[in-house]
Amino acid sequence: MSLLIENAMILTMEAERAVPMPGDLLIEQGRIVAVGDVSAEDRARAVEVIDATGLVAMPGLVNCHNHAAMSILRGFSEDLRLMEWLSEKMWPAEARMTEEDVYLGTLLATVEMIKSGTTAFADMYVFTNAVAQAVVDSGMRGVLTRGLIDMPEGEAVRFQEARELLARWNGAGDGRISVMVGPHGPHTCPPAFLRRAISLAEEFGAPLHIHLAETTEEVELIRREYDRTPTEYLHEVGLFDHHVVLAHSVHLTPGDIEILKKVGLRGGIAHNPISNLKLGCGIAPIGEFLRAGLTVGLGTDGPGSATTLDMFEEMKAAAWMQKVKAFDPTALQAGQVLQMATSEGAKVLALDEQVGTLTVGKQADIILVDMRAAHLCPPHDLTALLAYSASGADVHTTIVAGKVLMRDRQLTQLDEQALIAEVTARAKRITAGI
Amino acid sequence: MSLLIENAMILTMEAERAVPMPGDLLIEQGRIVAVGDVSAEDRARAVEVIDATGLVAMPGLVNCHNHAAMSILRGFSEDLRLMEWLSEKMWPAEARMTEEDVYLGTLLATVEMIKSGTTAFADMYVFTNAVAQAVVDSGMRGVLTRGLIDMPEGEAVRFQEARELLARWNGAGDGRISVMVGPHGPHTCPPAFLRRAISLAEEFGAPLHIHLAETTEEVELIRREYDRTPTEYLHEVGLFDHHVVLAHSVHLTPGDIEILKKVGLRGGIAHNPISNLKLGCGIAPIGEFLRAGLTVGLGTDGPGSATTLDMFEEMKAAAWMQKVKAFDPTALQAGQVLQMATSEGAKVLALDEQVGTLTVGKQADIILVDMRAAHLCPPHDLTALLAYSASGADVHTTIVAGKVLMRDRQLTQLDEQALIAEVTARAKRITAGI
Repeated sequence: MSLLIENAMILTMEAERAVPMPGDLLIEQGRIVAVGDVSAEDRARAVEVIDATGLVAMPGLVNCHNHAAMSILRGFSEDLRLMEWLSEKMWPAEARMTEEDVYLGTLLATVEMIKSGTTAFADMYVFTNAVAQAVVDSGMRGVLTRGLIDMPEGEAVRFQEARELLARWNGAGDGRISVMVGPHGPHTCPPAFLRRAISLAEEFGAPLHIHLAETTEEVELIRREYDRTPTEYLHEVGLFDHHVVLAHSVHLTPGDIEILKKVGLRGGIAHNPISNLKLGCGIAPIGEFLRAGLTVGLGTDGPGSATTLDMFEEMKAAAWMQKVKAFDPTALQAGQVLQMATSEGAKVLALDEQVGTLTVGKQADIILVDMRAAHLCPPHDLTALLAYSASGADVHTTIVAGKVLMRDRQLTQLDEQALIAEVTARAKRITAGI
Repeated sequence: MSLLIENAMILTMEAERAVPMPGDLLIEQGRIVAVGDVSAEDRARAVEVIDATGLVAMPGLVNCHNHAAMSILRGFSEDLRLMEWLSEKMWPAEARMTEEDVYLGTLLATVEMIKSGTTAFADMYVFTNAVAQAVVDSGMRGVLTRGLIDMPEGEAVRFQEARELLARWNGAGDGRISVMVGPHGPHTCPPAFLRRAISLAEEFGAPLHIHLAETTEEVELIRREYDRTPTEYLHEVGLFDHHVVLAHSVHLTPGDIEILKKVGLRGGIAHNPISNLKLGCGIAPIGEFLRAGLTVGLGTDGPGSATTLDMFEEMKAAAWMQKVKAFDPTALQAGQVLQMATSEGAKVLALDEQVGTLTVGKQADIILVDMRAAHLCPPHDLTALLAYSASGADVHTTIVAGKVLMRDRQLTQLDEQALIAEVTARAKRITAGI
């Protein structure tokens, strides 16, 4: 079965600021087999054809950090301080969430992601069999972890679920699911616990995904406990010997960045600009990360905090934050945030051999963005328009592994309105009286 | 001719955090004649009916600062330093713009604004006959100024155009156009020039609209020239004796804020968060403004710098910036940014007797926002969803003075694709070789 996308403006994202190239794309067996020129013979074989006149074809967006099921709590308890928000609202509500709630919350999040051009996401949550099933059913690509926190109650169950995720779900969904090990963060994982997580990763040859230095409170806590920065602490325990996704990394010192540079960090930073802004955490030193040669991808964090899973919003926020932080409009440019949302994010998630650029041989994770709108006119600079003026609502078609999940804004796999009705009812039950 | 909107969730914006009320709205002769309950008798009279099931009805958004015609330069020369951007790119390109270019650029901007829920905007530009004609033709509400800069060449022409705008266009478009006097800024208007602008405003009983303290460079320049802050300078010249729109106001000192408080500033601040971020100018002290009792509205600035006219984006950016500036997620909350984009913006533009809230007797400037989407689910808190999760693309219907300018995402007055083709051709000519 082959799919032809013709008359597109192609942005392969193989370079930071390539001029989009007019041309066609051919997809066979879920993979990209031609970019730019497609022979008449190959065109004739295409079973399905999408006319992409007026559309940009680019790699699907890669969301490097999410807690997708929290969509069920979106907008519940806004504008609160982090600890108040967590302890009085989020945790009591999450305690009521069932496996079925997690399944449906994750599925709702996949609808939002597919509609806004995200094709792959990294997730850390609980009830991970349900999360994995939702990813399989959505058609998206998922890089999943079972969040591991050091609490006496239920530790065996958490590790059991993490192990089950690795053993049962890695490679599921025709290879669309990959699994990492997810120790929650420096302040919730003491050394022995962290080492146990690392051992599990080693056993399965899996990368790790962890929160790092999201708040100044965390930094102070680790300072008091270990007389280290969170990064120093993770380094000493041996985490950086592995491919690791470092979510947030807002409060890293020059010394911390030097450590990550010295170890030649495999993986990279999952930068979540909107969550960091909205929770008042701070502005991560992205410029310093890039100058140190670190890989930086973008994520949304959970929709409970960021209230959006639109990666176009994250691109804008990332660029704006660095510009105002440095009082310099040349900081973090359009081509760079587009790379962070595609090719760089794929590297952070260890998916770069499969996706992240439109390259022959890679998986066909492709989005078509409709540029035929007043807010994307005139076409002086498509890269700038995509980074600064487009939104998720401009995504016309979303394709994962060659399968069309949305075409001309119509979902092909999932019933959005039915999901909304179901999640709305569950959300009411979960938050009643909190 | 009467228009009935039924089954809406109504957010009147008469209070900061009212619970949306289910109900209907009746519009007659361009005005709101009933909110909430509409009698059976009145319903029967309605010529046009919009079923707003699943939609929020709220006041149209008010954009307090724009240079709309610059849409023609959107995305041209991104990620440059302000002076380089202006002197090497924007000014040479603007010098080539004809009256017809300004007309079409403004019209393109009105399409973008109507599609993203803005019903009124304040503008400062040149060729203001063309700007005014575009506002009339678009069906939108406009608060127009001719930008006045002290340069020897063409000064008579500039003041002549400002006078013509006041005399000919104030009240045009069935009252949809109002006119202010627009001295450009403290650094471009010396005292005698500013006094001349103020005299013109007094002659016509018109408010004024001026840029203030956008950059630290401007503050330093005024310090060197007058040994004053820009605000002190404007105060001494007598600007604050009048209703005045102060665009930007990024670098105001506590003393400056005290001045604005003491004079009991009529008008208010036009805060342009995205432009200030993107140009690396800084984060305006909105919290301090509000604590001083000043009125703060939101604007986009011109699409040449901000690259978007979507006021939903500005609401998000405004809240995020204040939260991260204060390291406090409770700073500038959802209800507050919604007010800034509606009722408060109307006050800043001296339009609050006509628009800004859904109140019986006011002009029917109303938008319907479609909440039936995954990214706006579940409905824990409609105010938070509108402020943090919605985008301009969720606007379903836009009504100005009772006239439907967009319904179910379809424009009723303007031909978007024809405008895009025309502006694209002109943009190419204007920027060729620059």
